[in-house]
Amino acid sequence: MIAFSVHARDGAARAGILTTPHGPVETPIFMPVGTVGSVKAVGPDDLTAVGASILLANTYHLMLRPGPDLVARQGGLHRFMSWPGAILTDSGGFQVFSLAERRTLTEEGVTFRSHLDGSNQALGPERALAIQEALGADVVMAFDECPPAGAERAYLKESLARTARWARRCKAAWHPDGPSALFGIVQGGLYEDLRRRAAEEICALDLPGYALGGFSVGESVAQMHEGVARSAPLLPADRPRYLMGVGTPDDILHAVASGVDMMDCVLPTRCARNGLLFTSRGRLVIRNRRYAEDPRPPDEACGCYTCRTFSRAYLRHLFQARELLAYRLNSLHNLAYFLSLMAGARRAIREARFAAYAAAARSGWAEEQEAGQEA
Amino acid sequence: MIAFSVHARDGAARAGILTTPHGPVETPIFMPVGTVGSVKAVGPDDLTAVGASILLANTYHLMLRPGPDLVARQGGLHRFMSWPGAILTDSGGFQVFSLAERRTLTEEGVTFRSHLDGSNQALGPERALAIQEALGADVVMAFDECPPAGAERAYLKESLARTARWARRCKAAWHPDGPSALFGIVQGGLYEDLRRRAAEEICALDLPGYALGGFSVGESVAQMHEGVARSAPLLPADRPRYLMGVGTPDDILHAVASGVDMMDCVLPTRCARNGLLFTSRGRLVIRNRRYAEDPRPPDEACGCYTCRTFSRAYLRHLFQARELLAYRLNSLHNLAYFLSLMAGARRAIREARFAAYAAAARSGWAEEQEAGQEA
Repeated sequence: MIAFSVHARDGAARAGILTTPHGPVETPIFMPVGTVGSVKAVGPDDLTAVGASILLANTYHLMLRPGPDLVARQGGLHRFMSWPGAILTDSGGFQVFSLAERRTLTEEGVTFRSHLDGSNQALGPERALAIQEALGADVVMAFDECPPAGAERAYLKESLARTARWARRCKAAWHPDGPSALFGIVQGGLYEDLRRRAAEEICALDLPGYALGGFSVGESVAQMHEGVARSAPLLPADRPRYLMGVGTPDDILHAVASGVDMMDCVLPTRCARNGLLFTSRGRLVIRNRRYAEDPRPPDEACGCYTCRTFSRAYLRHLFQARELLAYRLNSLHNLAYFLSLMAGARRAIREARFAAYAAAARSGWAEEQEAGQEA
Repeated sequence: MIAFSVHARDGAARAGILTTPHGPVETPIFMPVGTVGSVKAVGPDDLTAVGASILLANTYHLMLRPGPDLVARQGGLHRFMSWPGAILTDSGGFQVFSLAERRTLTEEGVTFRSHLDGSNQALGPERALAIQEALGADVVMAFDECPPAGAERAYLKESLARTARWARRCKAAWHPDGPSALFGIVQGGLYEDLRRRAAEEICALDLPGYALGGFSVGESVAQMHEGVARSAPLLPADRPRYLMGVGTPDDILHAVASGVDMMDCVLPTRCARNGLLFTSRGRLVIRNRRYAEDPRPPDEACGCYTCRTFSRAYLRHLFQARELLAYRLNSLHNLAYFLSLMAGARRAIREARFAAYAAAARSGWAEEQEAGQEA
């Protein structure tokens, strides 16, 4: 199972190491998302090359296809997808509420129809744990409900109470002597008192780590940053803190400054497939005509395979021609950028200059930001 | 420019070296097709890893997008696509006749509308040469007409005479002191006398190499094998012989046995994107249910990244889920298979056991061939 230690602090920001059965993960860390057991458009070789140490995989998708039993018979998810590093699986709850059809929510859990074939499915605390343990994830998440940003306070209270009962059932279903560490999830929307109460209830379970859920679900960016800054300190300082589904490079720096250790988001890979490149000088919309004859790499400060090897002109051509290689090269670069932003953050925290590091990153982004506006 | 030397013969088969400005190419060789300046779904790193030494790129596609002038300003096609090995470009004729709209054929050349945007375009001997030299290809092809398999003898004679006149204009337009070696193309369909006369006319131009065009255009496999076997000896023994657009592993072994040195085909990459894997035991249709829990690599005799790293079960899952990684891993394997088949052929020729090598390869394919039938 995991161990976590904080080695340096800089304000609320902290740098540490999460030790997992599949190697150490230096924190703060960004986790690329490998929804169905593959980080879209890149291979494990690419992920190793860009310095990824932990991936996220989606329980909802994997339970529907190819199914947790098949993955378990193939030796678990690490072996199935040939990923030597750590894996965190979500609980499936978020996807059930965003992707599935004909949901019915009861105290027991959720029944729904698969978005793939319409088949009847059920997911609840015990089954979510069983699936994640069958997949063999290093970190497994408690089954929760993630209400949208607009949810009413009364509904949120009811939902939080149920999520707390589900978390207790997850803990009871969990095998603490196995390889999978269970993290609890603190919801509560933008209500400070509800977040506080949820944190007390969930953290009372004394789990190996805790997550903040229900951010980046429709609230404004400013509300999200403020909510994360207020909520992160509610989680115990000696456990890893995971902010789910966040976010942009700016969001990530805000979260790190608030004391968050782990993040995940589809943003770098999804944007890459749409031709949006994140760089130290801001965002590039690669289809933009201004790049048609630009011989420079996407980011002159980046050492990834894409930036070492290809010009903006070539990447624009690949994207315009819808060549499959475009998606790999763009995804590889965006992941490299996110991961190197985190590596820089860790160094800055250890050297007690994180605020200056974040300010320098932000002023760099302003330099070519215009590119994005033009598209 | 190029040099070519034959180092070993085994029956009509020969093994040699084609020396190019971008490195040596051991022959017989299979050339992966990089239509628009990218071998679909794989990067130059993958191509190097599978042992590719020369690629084919399509003049027709590159002239329309991004345009030869842009590529030239970017330092030529090798630099644009970051490919350190050799490149052969076709003349564009074949694609004009198969892809373009509203073609008008005159003695001057062909006018047509782009399949991309409907724009009016023209291509003829001089322009085809100028484009290919602007791209900086190591081998450039004479502009020719490739009539379909069903073309009448009378039309074929007329077309051959025009293709010979075009070849002379190509030679006049060509810069023999530049880096690009011009190959002539011998057409003639399945008519032995027409092939013979075309070979005499084209080979009289004393070019660095010669190609057989007009095979694999609708005739039966047996007719193609017989036609290639009869036509290859019509080309001079001291120049590289290139069979255009061929073929399957079996076609390739037939061509090598006939004295062909170079081949290209989209088959390995196109089939890969459709989930068909070529192996030493025959063809695997990876979506087939029988592979759902098969922990073996696609080909236990293959040393490519895909086979070293992933199971059939995982590759099937990726393909079923339409994950982009599936296309890369399948393409990488199929190219590795084709290229290792050629490497084996070269060794066998040097050791004077090519017939036994080809027979062993064919008996290997029979072992799992059933898999393809089931799909």
